[in-house]
Amino acid sequence: MFFSINRLSLIEEINKCNRIIDFKSPSPSITGISIEVSVDNLVLISTNSVISIKTCINVGEIDLIIKQPGNLLIRGKYFLDILRKMDDDIVNVSCVEENIVVLSGKKLEFSLNILDYNDFPIIAFREKGESIIVNCADLKKALNQTIISVNEYKQKIVLSGLNFSLKNDVFFITGTDGYRVSRKKINFWSSEIEEKFESNIPYKSVLEVIKLLPENGECKISIVDNYAMFIINKTVFQTSVLEGQFPDVNAVFPVDFNTTIFVDNKKFYKLISRADLPNDDNSIPVVNLILENEKIFIKSSIHQVGSYEEEFEEFELKGIDNQNISFNSKYLIDSLRSFETRMIEINLIDSKKPIVISSSEDDSLSQIILPMFSN
Amino acid sequence: MFFSINRLSLIEEINKCNRIIDFKSPSPSITGISIEVSVDNLVLISTNSVISIKTCINVGEIDLIIKQPGNLLIRGKYFLDILRKMDDDIVNVSCVEENIVVLSGKKLEFSLNILDYNDFPIIAFREKGESIIVNCADLKKALNQTIISVNEYKQKIVLSGLNFSLKNDVFFITGTDGYRVSRKKINFWSSEIEEKFESNIPYKSVLEVIKLLPENGECKISIVDNYAMFIINKTVFQTSVLEGQFPDVNAVFPVDFNTTIFVDNKKFYKLISRADLPNDDNSIPVVNLILENEKIFIKSSIHQVGSYEEEFEEFELKGIDNQNISFNSKYLIDSLRSFETRMIEINLIDSKKPIVISSSEDDSLSQIILPMFSN
Repeated sequence: MFFSINRLSLIEEINKCNRIIDFKSPSPSITGISIEVSVDNLVLISTNSVISIKTCINVGEIDLIIKQPGNLLIRGKYFLDILRKMDDDIVNVSCVEENIVVLSGKKLEFSLNILDYNDFPIIAFREKGESIIVNCADLKKALNQTIISVNEYKQKIVLSGLNFSLKNDVFFITGTDGYRVSRKKINFWSSEIEEKFESNIPYKSVLEVIKLLPENGECKISIVDNYAMFIINKTVFQTSVLEGQFPDVNAVFPVDFNTTIFVDNKKFYKLISRADLPNDDNSIPVVNLILENEKIFIKSSIHQVGSYEEEFEEFELKGIDNQNISFNSKYLIDSLRSFETRMIEINLIDSKKPIVISSSEDDSLSQIILPMFSN
Repeated sequence: MFFSINRLSLIEEINKCNRIIDFKSPSPSITGISIEVSVDNLVLISTNSVISIKTCINVGEIDLIIKQPGNLLIRGKYFLDILRKMDDDIVNVSCVEENIVVLSGKKLEFSLNILDYNDFPIIAFREKGESIIVNCADLKKALNQTIISVNEYKQKIVLSGLNFSLKNDVFFITGTDGYRVSRKKINFWSSEIEEKFESNIPYKSVLEVIKLLPENGECKISIVDNYAMFIINKTVFQTSVLEGQFPDVNAVFPVDFNTTIFVDNKKFYKLISRADLPNDDNSIPVVNLILENEKIFIKSSIHQVGSYEEEFEEFELKGIDNQNISFNSKYLIDSLRSFETRMIEINLIDSKKPIVISSSEDDSLSQIILPMFSN
């Protein structure tokens, strides 16, 4: 086994594989990265109990020259650490003895112990199947905007991830923890889907996909059996999906509102942040919004800490000028932060109905928060 | 008690006091910041078991207007959090009820519970006494360059801090853990010291002084009884000092060397960093430097991880072209990083004598490392 390759590009590929590895795994072979070197390409694979990743580099790409095929199982952490400390543009990777890989540059040589390649599991990547193609930047943004409503440790397993759903040519990504909903519509420009397409992607897998997504290019998403695949260039990211029926959140989305408040997002965000009083007890931070006489009054209080009150007038109003509603300030802060638009709309019905945050500048995103009952 | 003040400047002052507080202290009053408001100034005080800090703001400074004197003991963490979230340039601070402080801006009001002022200890600040004055930037740099050799958890208490010593008109700051020594000479431009001046400042206090030191201005250092004082503008930082006799490190500094290697600091730093192999066992990383035939060979190895070897030629040499010495690579890396000069000198005697790192571009700093015995 002998190849040479561009050092910085190899760091990037090793890094992708390393990120998902569970270094605390009791089985050392699972903490390795498998490198399969054939005559015309090099395939890196790593895995954990939920996610597997495969990335392929062809001869000629990132200066890859293969002098002798072969397989090895490296310890990615050490390998990466050493690649980062090297100065050379091109590094040589070779196996002389069975259990040692040699990384060399012009004037230096590292000999690293490796793992037994035969101990690494065989992983089936399900790359064929119905798929849709989305813009990477769009997907990244959508995942960031919807994951805020997901509680990773939710008892109801299906809620501990994001729901991907394509129905009637509309593709939604939705997250909910039962108290709030984040829903985002995404454009897709190719589909082989016949009818519908639905899957629930685990929280941790979503975080990894976010890290993997570049700012440019396209991502192919396909769902086969109990797996979802995200294919970006030559990298295949495969995750098992969550079982269960995701709730029909569209049913809870109110359509008619009594009051709509139009407000500058940054200003409103700062206002609500102030209401989020510091506290060490992890008690739920309740904020009370009172609308009357064309003014908003924001109040909050936490026993042992203190209380807060502020008057706010910089908004436009449509509908009834009389509301009194309370909610979890952390939820509202998360929602406001997910909007990139200048203005947002706070849509209210009454003190017992969900509030909906949206923006007419970008109607693809909606955030719903259930109110809290307080005195 | 009623005053108004510039918000951002107050944040800075509260921050200085907050940093030293031990929020885990079982006594809640010690976790507070005492604010003494008299007719013409405002004094903030906080303390922990080793360090006390006092900062004084006069009427007129940072927009301070005092309307009514009084005392209070605030919970600095909450106070700071709220000040940071406010938008107003000027904030009003007042006590209406006994156990509540009100922080208000133009349109908002925070009411915060406070602690009982009478529970706060009376702290004596020893501001008078023999003192020297140094440049703040010089002191900050010197502390950063010497603290690298201090082991906070050293069993020999006197070594768990930095030694400040003025003798024969030369002021040295020295740190050592018994295996290495960092020594820095500092210029001072005023002294009322009659004979000598010596004190050992605890590790944690040094870290806090580093944070406190601004880039400009001067710092007055004085030592009274078992306390050292650092006075920067109107802020007094007082720390108890370490007892015991600091070793005479000047005695171990070799003067005559057999070999001096002149090398680019950045290049040599990268070289030694590579020799510092990754490992999870916290075993001591030994690096071996061999000088022969006008070449340097750097070698290292860690069982279970692997080995490394590199050839290095970019240096100038004075003296004997034949050395073989081993040392702790972490120590050498720390030393190299402490130099801001372009070139450095590695001074060697033989494999059993300490190596000295210095730079003719700045002779105020010396770093000594004891060699390790290896095969």
